[in-house]
Amino acid sequence: MSKTNKQISMAVVRRLPKYHRYLKDLLDKDVFRISSKELSDIIGFTASQIRQDLNNFGGFGQQGYGYNVEDLYEEIGKILGLDKNYNAIVVGAGNMGQALANYPWFHNKGFSISAMFDANPKVIGTKFKDIDILDTADLNRYVKEHNVKIVVIATPKENAQEIANKLADTQVEGIWNFAPIDLDVPDHIIVENAHLSDSLFVLSYMINEPKLFER
Amino acid sequence: MSKTNKQISMAVVRRLPKYHRYLKDLLDKDVFRISSKELSDIIGFTASQIRQDLNNFGGFGQQGYGYNVEDLYEEIGKILGLDKNYNAIVVGAGNMGQALANYPWFHNKGFSISAMFDANPKVIGTKFKDIDILDTADLNRYVKEHNVKIVVIATPKENAQEIANKLADTQVEGIWNFAPIDLDVPDHIIVENAHLSDSLFVLSYMINEPKLFER
Repeated sequence: MSKTNKQISMAVVRRLPKYHRYLKDLLDKDVFRISSKELSDIIGFTASQIRQDLNNFGGFGQQGYGYNVEDLYEEIGKILGLDKNYNAIVVGAGNMGQALANYPWFHNKGFSISAMFDANPKVIGTKFKDIDILDTADLNRYVKEHNVKIVVIATPKENAQEIANKLADTQVEGIWNFAPIDLDVPDHIIVENAHLSDSLFVLSYMINEPKLFER
Repeated sequence: MSKTNKQISMAVVRRLPKYHRYLKDLLDKDVFRISSKELSDIIGFTASQIRQDLNNFGGFGQQGYGYNVEDLYEEIGKILGLDKNYNAIVVGAGNMGQALANYPWFHNKGFSISAMFDANPKVIGTKFKDIDILDTADLNRYVKEHNVKIVVIATPKENAQEIANKLADTQVEGIWNFAPIDLDVPDHIIVENAHLSDSLFVLSYMINEPKLFER
């Protein structure tokens, strides 16, 4: 795998999953070779942007040939860390927690949910599908004993920081946060927010935007 | 309300929901007045960024006084279109569709879910909470008759474009798309993607990033 000695910008990183999705679609359609121009037509970035983005990881494309779709798909998957396995748990066993535990993309890629946690005595001790729902009071111990790497927080806003605090002294590497709050965590834990309400509000902005501003 | 005669950049728009969240937190704590410096300390943008962002909508702040939290919260809410009511439906009544129909932030802000749709005969005709689950075959007619403005797509990837096609000739203004696919829609429909797998993959990138690149 090609390495560079510099970090790449988050703007590029945030485009990588989209490349990964489109390359998978091409493979599913038995397209094995593609030019940056053709890729541009389907993905919507300019060909120049595509060449620049992919150059960050070493030169995958060949002049006059284009990109080998399978190689590029594999390499981007590796860069995204999708060739590894992650022990994950979901905290909050409500509708959103269940939807996430059941999310198809979660599984196919080496993310496995070994347990769910909730504070509600009515659901503690039950199962969702095959996944045990455990007591949030045992979160810190479980996470340490089972070497959990990723914690999905799908609790109400009020409980999310308390959950993050319980993870502070553990080996957890990433929190995928669905609570509409920005979490304080120690430096060794990375937080990726999925703030759904922010996304909805951007949609409502865009719907109203033509009426808000004179063009 | 202050208007300007130019559009504002999407980068600014995407920061507005975060301002809105933090201002609500301040109001909940009975903080009614705040300087850009203090706001910067809690929200994490620079004070200069904050002044620039908010200047887009006319001058809310006053030299030596700071911002009136309540006014700013209200104005940003209006800019985001949160002072209006939207008739919305959820297509796909699986775990994710249910989680979204039940999402607390969906309701408090003038978004109301009047129906859910699914193609599975086993769930058609049943209810989720108080919401009727109807047949996707009736989607186009329902949307037109009930003046639906926002459609949440929470179907599998394979069905999402077909749903979008059914909306093409309607008055729907926005699609909030959770299927991991980019939709083709006519110009009068705005799509906001909530591509959860993209967000998860960015997290897995960031977890692995220190090991990928020599610093």
